[in-house]
Amino acid sequence: MSVLFYSEADDPVPWRQAFAAALPEMPFQVWPDVEDTESVRYALVWNPPSGLLEKLPNLRAVLALGAGVDALLADPATPQVPVLRLLDAGLAPQMAEYAVYAVLHFHRRMRDYEKQQKQRIWNQLAPMPARSWSVGIMGTGVIGGLILEHLVTLGYLACGWSRSGTSIQGVESFAGEAELEAFLSKCRVVINVLPLTPHTIGILGRRTFNAMPRGSYVVNIGRGGHLIEEELVAALDSGQIAGAMLDVFNEEPLPQSSPLWSHPNVIVTPHIAGVTIAAEAEAQVIENVKRMERGEQPVGVVDRAKGY
Amino acid sequence: MSVLFYSEADDPVPWRQAFAAALPEMPFQVWPDVEDTESVRYALVWNPPSGLLEKLPNLRAVLALGAGVDALLADPATPQVPVLRLLDAGLAPQMAEYAVYAVLHFHRRMRDYEKQQKQRIWNQLAPMPARSWSVGIMGTGVIGGLILEHLVTLGYLACGWSRSGTSIQGVESFAGEAELEAFLSKCRVVINVLPLTPHTIGILGRRTFNAMPRGSYVVNIGRGGHLIEEELVAALDSGQIAGAMLDVFNEEPLPQSSPLWSHPNVIVTPHIAGVTIAAEAEAQVIENVKRMERGEQPVGVVDRAKGY
Repeated sequence: MSVLFYSEADDPVPWRQAFAAALPEMPFQVWPDVEDTESVRYALVWNPPSGLLEKLPNLRAVLALGAGVDALLADPATPQVPVLRLLDAGLAPQMAEYAVYAVLHFHRRMRDYEKQQKQRIWNQLAPMPARSWSVGIMGTGVIGGLILEHLVTLGYLACGWSRSGTSIQGVESFAGEAELEAFLSKCRVVINVLPLTPHTIGILGRRTFNAMPRGSYVVNIGRGGHLIEEELVAALDSGQIAGAMLDVFNEEPLPQSSPLWSHPNVIVTPHIAGVTIAAEAEAQVIENVKRMERGEQPVGVVDRAKGY
Repeated sequence: MSVLFYSEADDPVPWRQAFAAALPEMPFQVWPDVEDTESVRYALVWNPPSGLLEKLPNLRAVLALGAGVDALLADPATPQVPVLRLLDAGLAPQMAEYAVYAVLHFHRRMRDYEKQQKQRIWNQLAPMPARSWSVGIMGTGVIGGLILEHLVTLGYLACGWSRSGTSIQGVESFAGEAELEAFLSKCRVVINVLPLTPHTIGILGRRTFNAMPRGSYVVNIGRGGHLIEEELVAALDSGQIAGAMLDVFNEEPLPQSSPLWSHPNVIVTPHIAGVTIAAEAEAQVIENVKRMERGEQPVGVVDRAKGY
């Protein structure tokens, strides 16, 4: 039995060390140096090429090196074994930092002050109390829940929306398609951390933007597929949306030709909101492998029907 | 008996309404429309011209429309009656927002990503966990305490320094001149919220910058007088200090000729970190006037020897 590692984004060295220390009986093979495909029981992967996993006849589980498994599930060549995704593993605090930064940036009008600084203009813009700023989080799992906690602590009027209606204590929660417009109509800022599924693809589009108050803000740290980029640009140009902070895109790296790069009201970051930190993910992955070896249930098993 | 109001920064209308509702027996005079200087018991002021208060023979107290009273105390023409400053009154949450924004901005390398965006560069910079970022707050009163709370919640390694040694639960605290260098040597970011006194004037200078780890950051939301601006520019140019976010300056508005406006590693904001919100300050000021009328002790009485 062995583990196969594939990722162009993650360094295999700390993973190899962690496995050697915790599971010395489990050889750790790093693609493309695979001596023995038959021995592979666990594939620890991020964005593997289509077909790679099919060649592993004794695969028991696919362990994703991230929280989003949409690409794995969309690939018909992914074997019908359990797919596990990382739950948190250092992602949630980082994504919460990013989300809090985005809200403060818009609320405290930092882009306006930056423009003023360039022109040496000293002009105090009207302050707005945080409690008059409603921030809506789309997605109320571990990540969305942590973002909501921080925003409430900072005094924002935060609310949450999810498809299934998971509610979070102390914040107004909206559920499902039926309550989406009521939720959006309250949001000065919308932060998307939904999983990408057939139900949520393109959810950040014209209809959503039009349901928000004029002059609102959009933050996307879910998946590029949630956002219809050309409809966002149109909403920004019309003033319906006042600004956006985007970390994920339909095509990554974001193509040079994208109008988002140079839009004056868009902040582009290169998919850095939440980066898997090996040390925190390792403990979770190794514990999962140990559980499966003992015949126990691992954590983070993806429901393929739901997509997360 | 009456109240005299003087401020070029605050709108007198809500203050007049608040006094009319809560203390209808107390006429509210707005400078320069003062009919009767003899009746003035309370002066509610921000940056009054030197000598204005001397002309009020029956003045019982000066109520500052802000938390910082350095200018009032420095003016020899300020009468020897109690000076009251605002404690919090909406300032602390706003200043904490600003401080958290500054820390996230530097920690999450937002300036670097902004530069990359301008050049359409997609490059993920190495992430740093918040717990590896030590943030030191100079000043551990109401404002510093709230900043520390938020930073701890976000996972930063926060510590505090004050002259008197007020310690805050759950964070490492340093006290006095003797422990200043030990404190500074830990700080990846220093945030100054000290009161300006003869002891703290110029405290953000070459000696302080040199005691911090190379490549650290400075945030000044205290007073302009805390910062020796030319020594900051030298520290930025040498790389000892990697960046600064400044909201207060020795001369405000910041002169057009200041090199801070165009320094690539400086963010200038026009004294907006904490703005007194009338609704929140009103309750505190009116309660103080009522207490003094009843012969009770008001809150926020400034110790002239300490300067706050």
